[in-house]
Amino acid sequence: MITKPVQDFYPEAFAHCYGCGRLNEHGHKIRSFWDGEETVMRFTPEEYHISIPGYVYGGLLASLIDCHGIGSAALAAYQAENREPGSLPAFRFVTASLQVDYLKPTPLGVELLLRGKILEIKGRKVITEVTVSANGEITAIGKVIGVQIPESFNRG
Amino acid sequence: MITKPVQDFYPEAFAHCYGCGRLNEHGHKIRSFWDGEETVMRFTPEEYHISIPGYVYGGLLASLIDCHGIGSAALAAYQAENREPGSLPAFRFVTASLQVDYLKPTPLGVELLLRGKILEIKGRKVITEVTVSANGEITAIGKVIGVQIPESFNRG
Repeated sequence: MITKPVQDFYPEAFAHCYGCGRLNEHGHKIRSFWDGEETVMRFTPEEYHISIPGYVYGGLLASLIDCHGIGSAALAAYQAENREPGSLPAFRFVTASLQVDYLKPTPLGVELLLRGKILEIKGRKVITEVTVSANGEITAIGKVIGVQIPESFNRG
Repeated sequence: MITKPVQDFYPEAFAHCYGCGRLNEHGHKIRSFWDGEETVMRFTPEEYHISIPGYVYGGLLASLIDCHGIGSAALAAYQAENREPGSLPAFRFVTASLQVDYLKPTPLGVELLLRGKILEIKGRKVITEVTVSANGEITAIGKVIGVQIPESFNRG
């Protein structure tokens, strides 16, 4: 049973991402886990992550959806190989495409729950659907197409 | 000739957005202008806005595309009414949908140029295509569907 987030297993050279890098002092340091057949991530925005008064900045939601989708892609890739995160080689995806629909304003001041559902794994590509919920209501839904970092990059 | 960015004319109550609010001390404070028939915005990411080493965080690019698209929507709405930004009532849009395709990694350490092209104005909705360029090369392209803030919100 893995109790660490998948981001803890990103190779050190790829652990500086502003959204999900455990080594980025200024970043969001998001943490993605399996929860049954879905993936989850919880995040409480800061007061200054505001859009219009009382609501969360949509750019932050896009960022959270993006990075949780990418973390979910890595989780799915390990699972597809029957390996645990932490075994080698490490999986690290980057974003090819991001789609976000803002269904209603997302209230500021509460913890957000992001849930990821793996829609497709095909070769080096993983497609994940991610929902954002606040107070039990879905406020945004996104789709993230992640691709594995090319071998030409040093995967650490 | 307007030399101020459209964000300077957002009503005070709606000028706190983390991406584009002139009153958000922590935010990006982006500034969007007309440039002929297109809109432009320039932004230099911070060193910590990193994804993989040497490249800009995709969530930041999504945020910039989002907010420049929303600023472009306001510019287009004024133009459609033959009014200058600063005349009343003020236009303020929010994001209904955001799509970003990352064409290639965006280098960190240079100024980015975002260009917006108004694709459609229909009722309270404006659709804008936004490209991100670095060193003269387009690295990402996005589409932003903006809708005017409902009258039920205090438009200041």
